[in-house]
Amino acid sequence: MVLDGTLRVVVLAGGVGGAKLAYGVAKQVAPQRLAIVGNVGDDFEHYGLHISPDLDTVMYTLAGIANPVTGWGIEGDTRQMLEMLARYGEEPWFGIGDRDLATHLLRTSWLSAGRSLTEVTARLAAALGVACRLLPATDGLLRTMVDTRELGTLPFQEYFVRHRWQPAVERIWFRRAGCDVTPQVRQAVEQADLLIIAPSNPLLSIGPILEVDGMRELVAKRRGPCIVVSPFVGGRAVKGPADKLMRELSLDFSPRGLAQFYAGLIDGLVIDESDASAPQPEGTPVLITQTLMASAADKVRLAGEVLAWGGELAE
Amino acid sequence: MVLDGTLRVVVLAGGVGGAKLAYGVAKQVAPQRLAIVGNVGDDFEHYGLHISPDLDTVMYTLAGIANPVTGWGIEGDTRQMLEMLARYGEEPWFGIGDRDLATHLLRTSWLSAGRSLTEVTARLAAALGVACRLLPATDGLLRTMVDTRELGTLPFQEYFVRHRWQPAVERIWFRRAGCDVTPQVRQAVEQADLLIIAPSNPLLSIGPILEVDGMRELVAKRRGPCIVVSPFVGGRAVKGPADKLMRELSLDFSPRGLAQFYAGLIDGLVIDESDASAPQPEGTPVLITQTLMASAADKVRLAGEVLAWGGELAE
Repeated sequence: MVLDGTLRVVVLAGGVGGAKLAYGVAKQVAPQRLAIVGNVGDDFEHYGLHISPDLDTVMYTLAGIANPVTGWGIEGDTRQMLEMLARYGEEPWFGIGDRDLATHLLRTSWLSAGRSLTEVTARLAAALGVACRLLPATDGLLRTMVDTRELGTLPFQEYFVRHRWQPAVERIWFRRAGCDVTPQVRQAVEQADLLIIAPSNPLLSIGPILEVDGMRELVAKRRGPCIVVSPFVGGRAVKGPADKLMRELSLDFSPRGLAQFYAGLIDGLVIDESDASAPQPEGTPVLITQTLMASAADKVRLAGEVLAWGGELAE
Repeated sequence: MVLDGTLRVVVLAGGVGGAKLAYGVAKQVAPQRLAIVGNVGDDFEHYGLHISPDLDTVMYTLAGIANPVTGWGIEGDTRQMLEMLARYGEEPWFGIGDRDLATHLLRTSWLSAGRSLTEVTARLAAALGVACRLLPATDGLLRTMVDTRELGTLPFQEYFVRHRWQPAVERIWFRRAGCDVTPQVRQAVEQADLLIIAPSNPLLSIGPILEVDGMRELVAKRRGPCIVVSPFVGGRAVKGPADKLMRELSLDFSPRGLAQFYAGLIDGLVIDESDASAPQPEGTPVLITQTLMASAADKVRLAGEVLAWGGELAE
């Protein structure tokens, strides 16, 4: 099978790392054939706003307006609102740019008017010129909760942003209500010729996607191959707490451990060449390449290799 | 009676003009003796935010951070959020600055948490260093509605901002629910040694304050004198549609007409010297001076004259 642009691709993506690979894939797959399934486990309410950090990161990245330094937020955005909040005595611990605020206001307003997160996300993304589908994994409530040793149970953003993922984690669990796979996600995954799990945090980004009711079964019954791209380079997360967290939870985060984590769901594992000497999986094909995506060219190259390998695995 | 700083003053104020006089009064009356009662008839919900334009104008002015060019909004504020809204295809017809947004977000968030508008306003104003009381006329729902010839019934901000008060007005009325005078306003007005009605639009700014259940009776039973400062200079509103509107509704907006409008509620009328030859009221004392407040010095001077005259009228 050759991925010649007529085949259907689904990417499961978290935040910054996932967005980068999604960007590379979107440059090579026709938009009507591509769906990005985004994590909503880190969504939260802040000053009455419904904020979807991972969906926004993917959306801004695909729209070409993401902040290239942080990977999240909008390039050139300002922080006047946050400065004023501080003047009112608030602790502005979550970074919201002024332009970024328009996204949160519209999302909140449209959700209040009864639109689903799927509809709202589609409308926002389309307005920014994103041509492929960007689909929240669920329209229900799914909130990642983190039990920490020092501070007890924290909602995800309190753990991740407010406390900069420093507290030691004992357990990750989910507050949930009506969190079924959406019809849009179901159709996209069922029809996919290739599933790609982006180099996002397995526990905090991909984990919540797989927690959506029906999702794990849907991926398990995949018709095309499923390839996971490791988020580790040299045995460490490129960004964020993936390695720290897996260590705290006594999980093996070598290539072998990663393949075990996704057991039954994947047909191939892409790892960085710096991890070639770490323990490797048995029975799961491994592609060794350079996975660090510093430039747009890196994203396109890595995505191209994953797409090509997906074609080979499907044969 | 001499207003020596130990006497209690209440100012009924709308937006820009009212805020200017309130600023001048606040420079000369001890903060614990001064209450500004603000109009909430032009409050509205916009993208889920509870916006209180008149309260904000007074608050920013008293805090010394108002935009000196417009009279409303915050000096040096930016409009990144509005620009982004436009990029999303929205029509950004209502001016919200990025810093200004923090006010709306906090107000909305605190109201949702069950605080009253009186509490929320006090907390916001205190944080900005406003020492006197700023009191919304009511914690209930009071919304100014405008029946126009061309466009039918419009909520106030649609008429005032979106359509720049150009449609001809046939009637002004109020959507209302539970809009009683608050205990704080009641106490302030009952104890006031001097009531000042600021040079705000009689129909759209002071009118809604007097529409609050119990307010008209409260002002009518005043113990000290009540002085109204005319919003007209040379027979025209300094800002906004006061004269256009009164003409459309066949109301006399000469000094005589203004005294009739406030019949039973006032003991003195302050008019600009440019209106000295217009029809004057019978039975209501008139103070002729310069009422245009272009500079901070103008505000303090006019407020000083009103306070001094109030002292004389009380004797």
